[in-house]
Amino acid sequence: MKRFEVIMAGGGGTRFWPLSRKRQPKQLLNITGGDIMLNEAIKRLDSLVEREDVYIVTNEEQQKLLKELLVGGIPFKNILVEPAARNTAPCVLYAASVLKKEHGDGVMCVFPADHHIGNPSEYQRVIARAAKIAEETEQIVTIGIRPTFPATGYGYISQGEGWEKDVWKVRQFVEKPCLEKAEEYVKSGEFFWNSGVFVFRISTILKAFERYLPEMAGQMEHLMQAWQTEQWDTMLKGLYPQLQSISIDYGIMERAEHVLVMEGDYGWSDVGSFDALDAVYTPDGQNNISIGESLLIDSKGCIVRSEEKLIALIGVEDLVVVEAKDAILVCPKAQAQDAKRAVEALQSQGKTQYL
Amino acid sequence: MKRFEVIMAGGGGTRFWPLSRKRQPKQLLNITGGDIMLNEAIKRLDSLVEREDVYIVTNEEQQKLLKELLVGGIPFKNILVEPAARNTAPCVLYAASVLKKEHGDGVMCVFPADHHIGNPSEYQRVIARAAKIAEETEQIVTIGIRPTFPATGYGYISQGEGWEKDVWKVRQFVEKPCLEKAEEYVKSGEFFWNSGVFVFRISTILKAFERYLPEMAGQMEHLMQAWQTEQWDTMLKGLYPQLQSISIDYGIMERAEHVLVMEGDYGWSDVGSFDALDAVYTPDGQNNISIGESLLIDSKGCIVRSEEKLIALIGVEDLVVVEAKDAILVCPKAQAQDAKRAVEALQSQGKTQYL
Repeated sequence: MKRFEVIMAGGGGTRFWPLSRKRQPKQLLNITGGDIMLNEAIKRLDSLVEREDVYIVTNEEQQKLLKELLVGGIPFKNILVEPAARNTAPCVLYAASVLKKEHGDGVMCVFPADHHIGNPSEYQRVIARAAKIAEETEQIVTIGIRPTFPATGYGYISQGEGWEKDVWKVRQFVEKPCLEKAEEYVKSGEFFWNSGVFVFRISTILKAFERYLPEMAGQMEHLMQAWQTEQWDTMLKGLYPQLQSISIDYGIMERAEHVLVMEGDYGWSDVGSFDALDAVYTPDGQNNISIGESLLIDSKGCIVRSEEKLIALIGVEDLVVVEAKDAILVCPKAQAQDAKRAVEALQSQGKTQYL
Repeated sequence: MKRFEVIMAGGGGTRFWPLSRKRQPKQLLNITGGDIMLNEAIKRLDSLVEREDVYIVTNEEQQKLLKELLVGGIPFKNILVEPAARNTAPCVLYAASVLKKEHGDGVMCVFPADHHIGNPSEYQRVIARAAKIAEETEQIVTIGIRPTFPATGYGYISQGEGWEKDVWKVRQFVEKPCLEKAEEYVKSGEFFWNSGVFVFRISTILKAFERYLPEMAGQMEHLMQAWQTEQWDTMLKGLYPQLQSISIDYGIMERAEHVLVMEGDYGWSDVGSFDALDAVYTPDGQNNISIGESLLIDSKGCIVRSEEKLIALIGVEDLVVVEAKDAILVCPKAQAQDAKRAVEALQSQGKTQYL
């Protein structure tokens, strides 16, 4: 059975300001290596999925940018545009419906566009295994990451009965918990972080939508009648924004039977903010990470990223210093997530040229 | 009697890196206000000295830059070039000798090029008074600044017998002291910081050179025979580097009789490094000083200076963040003087493009 890769690349994200911008969010930036994150996501599955079978769901602005930035071999028609952001359930349904129209059935692997994988070959092994299970058993397979700390910024998946080695039935999907709950989850040893990777047959997921989100399934079926007709653009713009805004986790996964969680132990990081670069790059002897031209004197635990100018640090600790095209951010590593506060402040001051 | 202004502008200075560069030291930078420091120094004495009577002693490289940067009205011939840096005594003698050749006698006021004056009208009053005393009494008048802390980076002048209000005979010039001594000086109430401003008649200082540095005086007299002849450049380049390298303080002031110290209470700062900008600019409610485009969130006591890019600080304290053309410096305010360490490191790494 043919395998398809669907990458959800619609997100905005402000926690990588000043690198990320309204028009150029994290997945379109080269943050972790040789290429933009979206292309890294595609390349690392080249051994499993043909480029012509890679689909990207994004918004109109990013579609334009992708014309220039996207790695070669992906047909332009495979870039599916959402006229409005409606969370992940409509996004998955949209892609599944297009795939059904074009290919009938197949195994569909859904990925976020902006995660980092430290061990790509283990990643390939895990995804290939998930695809095999999804194909043979019509299960929905999610990939879970063993939590290393009680994160309150991720959803969790609790494991139920064992299915086979490193695979369990899903007991429950849990949205971002409070710290106390998160600590419980980590301690129990029975919870995973939800990494946003889902693997299923096209027919399986479409059946699930019909059952758990029948209104959305009906609307989408109506819309798909216009696929590859002259009415498509108008219909899409008219109907898509009316779809219920709901996540695939809430809308489908929490309700569906036949959902498995497979452990992914492949150096996962969602690279949520600059401090996450600690997990992506190898620090120097003073625990500094330096990307671009820099000069570090008596400085420890810093993350420095220059673009055009040399950044010199003298006698500082645990700072993030990032230079972008027209702005520079300096903040403590522990407050790296606050980059979004700069975005909010610039917005409210009307300095939109920096957004 | 005519008044002349002699500005010593030969210094290098690395403590304002990345703003200051080998070819563009502090006095040629706009650090404190609307113009480069050298021009600020000239403009603030416009009411006392005609522009055509302003002389600048500098080196060859800076002479070239001055063609573009120097405020209007100063004849190019008034820029006296030192072929080699020989400290301040030869520099003063050189200027005094040229002034004697061109104007006979007059009152010569010597200033550093890179100090900041918070209260220019009081400054003018003090300098005018010093010039009057120098003219009428043939005293050498130095301007002293009451120390506000036990600085170990400045020379001191101890006051002797009172001469008139706010003017004393000089008891002693003291070079940069250790901290213990500096504390004693400040406590005694009888010491000033030596601000490097000297006022005297041309004839007075030349007599002092003949008496205390007779060899240098003889060499200079020999050199001046070539003044405005075709031999001048060759003679200058041959003889000047042979002059003894000694400061005017050591060479003349410490030895001379008839030296007065007048108190200057006009918001003086030598703007020795970025932290000194605290004394030049008015901080905001969070004690931040911000020059150029910036965004300060939860940040206190910082000095921020941007040139082309917006600098955003989040949650940091007492940091210096300075953006220059091709480099950015981040260091704690208490270590602002260490900017020179960046220069040393870049030098030793061969990254001379940043020097």
